[in-house]
Amino acid sequence: MAELSRLSFNQMTAGKATLSEVVDACCKHGVEWIGPWRYSVSEDPRAAARLIRGAGLKVSSLCRGGMFPAATAEERRRRIEDNLRAIDEAAAIQTDLLVLVNGPSPDRDIDGARQMVIEGIGAVADHAAKCGVRLGIEPLHPMFAADRSVVVTMGEANEMAARFDPRHVGLVVDVYHIWWDPRVYAEIAKAGERIFAFHVSDWIVPTPDMLMGRGMMGDGVIELRRLREAVERAGYKGPIEVEIFNQALWELPVDNIVGQVAERFSEFV
Amino acid sequence: MAELSRLSFNQMTAGKATLSEVVDACCKHGVEWIGPWRYSVSEDPRAAARLIRGAGLKVSSLCRGGMFPAATAEERRRRIEDNLRAIDEAAAIQTDLLVLVNGPSPDRDIDGARQMVIEGIGAVADHAAKCGVRLGIEPLHPMFAADRSVVVTMGEANEMAARFDPRHVGLVVDVYHIWWDPRVYAEIAKAGERIFAFHVSDWIVPTPDMLMGRGMMGDGVIELRRLREAVERAGYKGPIEVEIFNQALWELPVDNIVGQVAERFSEFV
Repeated sequence: MAELSRLSFNQMTAGKATLSEVVDACCKHGVEWIGPWRYSVSEDPRAAARLIRGAGLKVSSLCRGGMFPAATAEERRRRIEDNLRAIDEAAAIQTDLLVLVNGPSPDRDIDGARQMVIEGIGAVADHAAKCGVRLGIEPLHPMFAADRSVVVTMGEANEMAARFDPRHVGLVVDVYHIWWDPRVYAEIAKAGERIFAFHVSDWIVPTPDMLMGRGMMGDGVIELRRLREAVERAGYKGPIEVEIFNQALWELPVDNIVGQVAERFSEFV
Repeated sequence: MAELSRLSFNQMTAGKATLSEVVDACCKHGVEWIGPWRYSVSEDPRAAARLIRGAGLKVSSLCRGGMFPAATAEERRRRIEDNLRAIDEAAAIQTDLLVLVNGPSPDRDIDGARQMVIEGIGAVADHAAKCGVRLGIEPLHPMFAADRSVVVTMGEANEMAARFDPRHVGLVVDVYHIWWDPRVYAEIAKAGERIFAFHVSDWIVPTPDMLMGRGMMGDGVIELRRLREAVERAGYKGPIEVEIFNQALWELPVDNIVGQVAERFSEFV
């Protein structure tokens, strides 16, 4: 069983609550880590940092940078600038990890877009290293290949990360995105010290919605414990983020959501 | 451009029409091949064969066998018996290919279910060879891993098929299921003569529905021509089935559907 002290509550799990409400609920339920999103941090990162640290919480990661592929060089440059800002924000809220969701292709050339991701990461890696912020490439589920991420498998993320310094560029392993992959355990082992984060939720059957249909741990078919043990064998011992996009869950009071997450985490992760 | 003489109309593309209506529409639009489903064949395969052959059409494949994993040995035995019947039906309607959609896991042990697929194929392969029916393992999109198929990548299908005689067990390559895979071209090349079928449709953005949201060729992001050329380089020169599960399409008269498919096939495949 994973220690409750490793649980990190990703803000999007209570997508309708403010950062301040999420922080309060985490404190109440003994959650020590939080994973905020840029939309609640960008305007005043120092204030967000004070809010979080003031409550005694630590920040496991900032969601999210990435989205590198674009149709024009000018637009790709703008995306890179936005990632440089995201890195600064990550440093300001005192987390050492920026999660990269790498974006879809601007056209049918998916391999071309994959090249743009590599170029984008290359363009911001030095700044990230200087700021003490690691870049975590998150492969998304292949059902998001056309609209959210051309990076869709652990194998692909491992190959991309291998082009960079393993201290600065690695992987975010989210069970929801990778559980189906026949190669997942081999690729987790291969990733080793490049595993910078581990996210949990569950795949419910039938899936109510492609984006907003993730399940609470224990409600679905993912081998959560087997995957956790695999990333631990690979060397990862850090916080475990719970990130659940689920419309029905969002309708609940934030306090209930965090409470349920803590319970399910103890029981199923 | 693919010759129209290679177009095969998969019956499910006009899911509300009878087999007889689909046959008539194919004749009218110069489509030479058809891919029927068992639900319209099983009751009287010889009558289905007479209907199809009498109209001058050829059968590219029968959909579908598979669904091997089950919780009990007794149920797995029943699934194997059903596959033996499917093989007989394929022979009776004079096609040399049975498409295998291999089924979900009965529990969280997805790797165990993958083993059951291998055992299931092994249990029916001799009968299939004797009947002159090849078995085509179809990897489905990973979004169906929990409810339709534990076989989700070309790599996995290649590894499974490699356990059997390449004359009798191979792959069904459906662009909708495999287009996102960074390894797809490498695995197509590796599959070589084991490619027994090639299916086309398109991935539209946003996807209206996980099951019933496939697009007409040209309406989405899949590199259809690049994939067709890749399977041809690998050695596949047979019929190309159009298989589109789309609710809006189903509402049209079968004649319009077949006409549109033939047009789009010529333009985009």
